[in-house]
Amino acid sequence: MKRAEKALNPLRDPRDKRLPRVAGPCVLVLFGVTGDLSRKKLLPAIYDLANRGLLPPGFSLVGFARRDWAHQDFRQLAHDAVKEHARTPFREDVWNQLAEGIHFVPGTFDDPGAFEALAMAVKELDEQRGTGGNYAFYLSIPPKFFQDVVKQLQASGLSQPSEGSWRRVVIEKPFGHDLASAQELNAILHEVFPEESIFRIDHYLGKETVQNILALRFANNLFEPIWNRSYVDHVQITMAEDIGIGGRAGYFDGVGTARDVIQNHLLQLLALTAMEEPVSFAAESVRAEKAKVLSAVRLPKDLGAYTVRGQYAAGWQGGVKVRGYLEEEGIPPNSRTDTYSAVRLDVDTRRWAGVPFYLRTGKRLTRRATEVALIFQRAPHLPFAVTDTEELGENALVIRVQPDEGVTMRFGSKVPGTSMEVRDVNMDFDYGESFTESSPEAYERLLLDVLIGDPPLFPRQEEVELSWEILDPIEEYWDKHGKPEPYKSGGWGPKAADEMMARDGRAWRRL
Amino acid sequence: MKRAEKALNPLRDPRDKRLPRVAGPCVLVLFGVTGDLSRKKLLPAIYDLANRGLLPPGFSLVGFARRDWAHQDFRQLAHDAVKEHARTPFREDVWNQLAEGIHFVPGTFDDPGAFEALAMAVKELDEQRGTGGNYAFYLSIPPKFFQDVVKQLQASGLSQPSEGSWRRVVIEKPFGHDLASAQELNAILHEVFPEESIFRIDHYLGKETVQNILALRFANNLFEPIWNRSYVDHVQITMAEDIGIGGRAGYFDGVGTARDVIQNHLLQLLALTAMEEPVSFAAESVRAEKAKVLSAVRLPKDLGAYTVRGQYAAGWQGGVKVRGYLEEEGIPPNSRTDTYSAVRLDVDTRRWAGVPFYLRTGKRLTRRATEVALIFQRAPHLPFAVTDTEELGENALVIRVQPDEGVTMRFGSKVPGTSMEVRDVNMDFDYGESFTESSPEAYERLLLDVLIGDPPLFPRQEEVELSWEILDPIEEYWDKHGKPEPYKSGGWGPKAADEMMARDGRAWRRL
Repeated sequence: MKRAEKALNPLRDPRDKRLPRVAGPCVLVLFGVTGDLSRKKLLPAIYDLANRGLLPPGFSLVGFARRDWAHQDFRQLAHDAVKEHARTPFREDVWNQLAEGIHFVPGTFDDPGAFEALAMAVKELDEQRGTGGNYAFYLSIPPKFFQDVVKQLQASGLSQPSEGSWRRVVIEKPFGHDLASAQELNAILHEVFPEESIFRIDHYLGKETVQNILALRFANNLFEPIWNRSYVDHVQITMAEDIGIGGRAGYFDGVGTARDVIQNHLLQLLALTAMEEPVSFAAESVRAEKAKVLSAVRLPKDLGAYTVRGQYAAGWQGGVKVRGYLEEEGIPPNSRTDTYSAVRLDVDTRRWAGVPFYLRTGKRLTRRATEVALIFQRAPHLPFAVTDTEELGENALVIRVQPDEGVTMRFGSKVPGTSMEVRDVNMDFDYGESFTESSPEAYERLLLDVLIGDPPLFPRQEEVELSWEILDPIEEYWDKHGKPEPYKSGGWGPKAADEMMARDGRAWRRL
Repeated sequence: MKRAEKALNPLRDPRDKRLPRVAGPCVLVLFGVTGDLSRKKLLPAIYDLANRGLLPPGFSLVGFARRDWAHQDFRQLAHDAVKEHARTPFREDVWNQLAEGIHFVPGTFDDPGAFEALAMAVKELDEQRGTGGNYAFYLSIPPKFFQDVVKQLQASGLSQPSEGSWRRVVIEKPFGHDLASAQELNAILHEVFPEESIFRIDHYLGKETVQNILALRFANNLFEPIWNRSYVDHVQITMAEDIGIGGRAGYFDGVGTARDVIQNHLLQLLALTAMEEPVSFAAESVRAEKAKVLSAVRLPKDLGAYTVRGQYAAGWQGGVKVRGYLEEEGIPPNSRTDTYSAVRLDVDTRRWAGVPFYLRTGKRLTRRATEVALIFQRAPHLPFAVTDTEELGENALVIRVQPDEGVTMRFGSKVPGTSMEVRDVNMDFDYGESFTESSPEAYERLLLDVLIGDPPLFPRQEEVELSWEILDPIEEYWDKHGKPEPYKSGGWGPKAADEMMARDGRAWRRL
């Protein structure tokens, strides 16, 4: 992979005769500028978009936080964040132009005066930088503050677009912690913003490899014919993390991996994998197909046998001794929060009836990897001597979401030699090696989509609610039955997860 | 590829609990020891088999040729051939043991005395080295001498096995130059040897990648579901050579590429690609399926439009100016021999009706490559913007027979960037990288099979005759109509070949 040689802007490919998707004049108002997400992802992504020429010259960024800062202080924070985390090279001129549009408004979420100051600030930008009254409000803040902020946006008049301009609000998961709270959150947002102005970010949907699931399936004639119950034995969707909760105790405890990962990322991956072909890639078409699949998901009858939760205990990881979850700072010693969760789901459609989808996610596992793996049935007959296929496993098609983005097919091939022995081999497609274009970071893609107003990669409320409908009974069951099984850090999760697969005569892939 | 690290003997894999396939006591009598094939392939293959421990200690090799040689002279020739061409490292002890069993009998094919001497020589070996009266006669000589040799083998009693021993005869293509001559040749062989003792060598069938066609198709569940007319648009089978005829004018002129390559190698590849699943890989089952497919092959009605022959003209190849075929030494200036041939064939089976198989072979083409490519129909519907699929070609599954042995899948993948553009990418499986076992050379495999008496990789007479039945009408048509089209050396053959594909709205793959 020669990143350096890759085109800075995949949209400016000289062979591409189409106009690039470029944002029009606007202001991005960022709530929660001092958070990790802002520093590591959002600010760098904004710079990268500017560097790729996808932001308009007058683009402005307004930070809002409870800090006694001048504009210059926020610019410095942004500067440092960009220098450290941006994907594209740092160019002084690009930065200087961007920095001119960076402003800061100090204040708390319960202070109407601060929002009036904000309203004045963006109005000034409209006049000075021609941002045309188009504002996107990015709520990179804990959900408990959503209500305060949207109310303030309404009260200060910021949420109402003037003629010919737009207002959008961007929220990050969690979209509630169950169906009821999600509906409540939604009601709060809807009081102020119409559904089409609400952009819910599931950053997994911004990943190239996730979008590529649709390209692979529907641009080709090789995969779709076997993408069904006649050939697929089961599907495994995994998001494994090698890290623990780090400093996120306050956010994570009481939420857990099922709510934090399965409800959004993994169910979205399931939806993209299992959905029927959309009429087109227009937002409405794709979302309709995803909603169809999510509403066809059936929970296991025996939730005890087919859901698993675990909690990491102490162990070794990367040669370092690490603490168990209950010993982490800020975690109550009797916490029952899951740091590992797995579930078997069925999809009651003509295509998938009888094909289980196994979802798992966990922290402090052996290694970091996210993938969707279709495991195929064995060939119905093997005209080989029995011993010749002793080392033949099941065929698999694996979409590697991260970190080594690409596609792997596993199949049996003749072992070189003078007999007909067959053994599994891998055929690989590597995203990084196959394209000269550099992949935009997920947040770059999603931020640009917000500013352009292009919604296909954002889950709509219906999907959020359908996902909670799937998860709620599991969480309720867990609440009433026992507690998470401890598992050793650095391994592959609790024993119960392996037992769940063994119950079906299957096994998790070793990643 | 780290050849050096690969196991010397793939059959002696320590994980392999099966007994290796090892030849029993026997003598290999080699006619035509001074030829290219003998020096470059057969003698090195014999050494490699010995080095891998697959030959019995008493194994003996008798050379027969019109040379006034002592045993030592033939040993020296074999020694030099092994040193130059063997695949496995030269080991003095292995060579010394092999050399002890190397003998030479001088003589001509019309000299009964020489064959009596040969009979005495092998009898002596039986006594001295315990070869048990088992003799394989390898006729690495021009077919016009076959009759003489088999008659002499009969007259001298060499062809008749004693109780409990075996006699086998091995012949190389060409198996005749048309159906009538093939039947004639067969009658000659059958007068002396029963069909089960005749081993016809098509060395392509000894290649790992060719055998792997069967493994790929029938050990997996990924490929066979789309391996039919519902998904495959057409199949291209190519054997391209970059060299000219070299010193083979005497053999090649009057024969041509269609007889030399299509009749055997390419039709065998077609048979393996198109055949139904055999009940097992036993010789009878595989041969029966191949024969079924070959008998289902239908010639194009318009032989003028759907067959092509060419003859190389002067040109540049690898930076060197090269002569045209008609200027090659030993070629009559009015020769009409084809150095390029291509044909469209149809396979009238439920699986392949309507799917053309395009076969082509040629000398002095751009590069050396042999492959079987299944080109798939485009997806029936593309839910993309039209511009997004401008660079999307057809899906393809390519079995690379040589030189870079492996499998390639070509399919569309999302181009990194903020739009849904799709472009072709390749997913590769590389034989050399995937296995630690080194591939035995095709002749190693085939010689071992002869000595063991295992016939699945040898075409039987029925297949040979079916292949001539396919080729004869084409050659007859060519005899009556015009002459080969000249094509520039170093290119991709005559224009007519491209026109033939264009007529069907298709194009040859650029290799």
